[in-house]
Amino acid sequence: MKRYLATVAYDGTNFFGWQKQNGFRTVQEELEVSLSALFHVKTFCYGASRTDRGVHALCQKAVFDAETTIPAEKIPLAIIKYLPDDISVLDCRVVDSEFNPRFEVKQKTYRYTIYNSEFRNPTRRNYTEFVRDKLDIEKMQEAAKAFLGEHDFKGFCSAHTSAKTTVRTIYDISVSKDNENEISIYVTGNGFLYNMVRIIAGTLIFAGMGKIDPEKMPEIIKSGDRTKAGKTAGPEGLCLVDAQL
Amino acid sequence: MKRYLATVAYDGTNFFGWQKQNGFRTVQEELEVSLSALFHVKTFCYGASRTDRGVHALCQKAVFDAETTIPAEKIPLAIIKYLPDDISVLDCRVVDSEFNPRFEVKQKTYRYTIYNSEFRNPTRRNYTEFVRDKLDIEKMQEAAKAFLGEHDFKGFCSAHTSAKTTVRTIYDISVSKDNENEISIYVTGNGFLYNMVRIIAGTLIFAGMGKIDPEKMPEIIKSGDRTKAGKTAGPEGLCLVDAQL
Repeated sequence: MKRYLATVAYDGTNFFGWQKQNGFRTVQEELEVSLSALFHVKTFCYGASRTDRGVHALCQKAVFDAETTIPAEKIPLAIIKYLPDDISVLDCRVVDSEFNPRFEVKQKTYRYTIYNSEFRNPTRRNYTEFVRDKLDIEKMQEAAKAFLGEHDFKGFCSAHTSAKTTVRTIYDISVSKDNENEISIYVTGNGFLYNMVRIIAGTLIFAGMGKIDPEKMPEIIKSGDRTKAGKTAGPEGLCLVDAQL
Repeated sequence: MKRYLATVAYDGTNFFGWQKQNGFRTVQEELEVSLSALFHVKTFCYGASRTDRGVHALCQKAVFDAETTIPAEKIPLAIIKYLPDDISVLDCRVVDSEFNPRFEVKQKTYRYTIYNSEFRNPTRRNYTEFVRDKLDIEKMQEAAKAFLGEHDFKGFCSAHTSAKTTVRTIYDISVSKDNENEISIYVTGNGFLYNMVRIIAGTLIFAGMGKIDPEKMPEIIKSGDRTKAGKTAGPEGLCLVDAQL
């Protein structure tokens, strides 16, 4: 029996998030069904990040234990025929039998994408947050700087977080224009509280609309007051794009 | 009663194409349902391009006749609440009562997008053609040049085309790398035969794989022989991105 670490990509649109929930379609359960079919035995898997309903991932890290003659690097190809078309396994390798991805992933990057135009683009509806008001990207960039470094993000998480501490470190944050109508926020940190990236995105959207003064950002973060931050932006715009061990 | 010309965008994933078909969900029918709800009277609409099942559009041109006090430019906003979330009306204006978009659209641009990587990206599965074999973009660019200008595209349309003539003019064609794993083909022409862009895309994919020699392209086009061209690439990668009157 060996433990394997896989990188998994999925389109969150038709899932009730990563984590198994009785009666709902989740990525974890679909992946377990596929792994079980591949290995002919009930197989469990555990992910590094519990992405929410509608949130996407290009780089979820998941482990599973298996006894198989298939070489680890061939598993991504071997499992394709058992996977639904909204999940891909991108790579796979053997890790230590005690390896726990929740603790081993030291750094994650999320991308939050906004579609900023007068009218919605139907082909982007499941992958972006639609904002009709014209956003000032420079104000968003200025506001974003305040998140850099170690902060208590108590005001940037949903009320009933189970985290022991709300202190997190943001290593990098950027706001850039991907094309005519899309703005992406990239946030890299050592960990994220429940809904944290979506609240950061919602706050930067408010800054871009002129509803929050970028200069007030350090104060808003320090206050720890959820009501001073912006709305929680929708799940569709969020994608886990990188995870580093 | 006035005739209106609208620009319509849609995600083709959940439609059986543009054109009405009894018992199937089509863009034309959904748009007619929405227009009828907005104007409180059965309203018909007619498009410039009959896109197939799964094909997307950011710039379909459609006309409808209506008697309304809503100014034309306010119709896109007024109709939002009646539209499904996979259709948007981007603009609208009054045109001559004889205006027929099929004849008035003089030039169209299609984009065909390929996802070229070892594994599928689930978030791009409905918007790209997945190709696992590494494509040589320079060979694709070289092969593309042969399509420029006026040609008889008999070998680049599906067998039972109803077109009177298979001669079409390609004004512009380009192949470019959009990002690490995506290659887009843009084709602009005065008109396209049934499946023509998808067969051009399939042929350029073959050129990129080394299955078709770019130097043989003029000969292949001239032959008028469908079997010498590449496969018909899937509908997901195709998007009508521009239409000029």
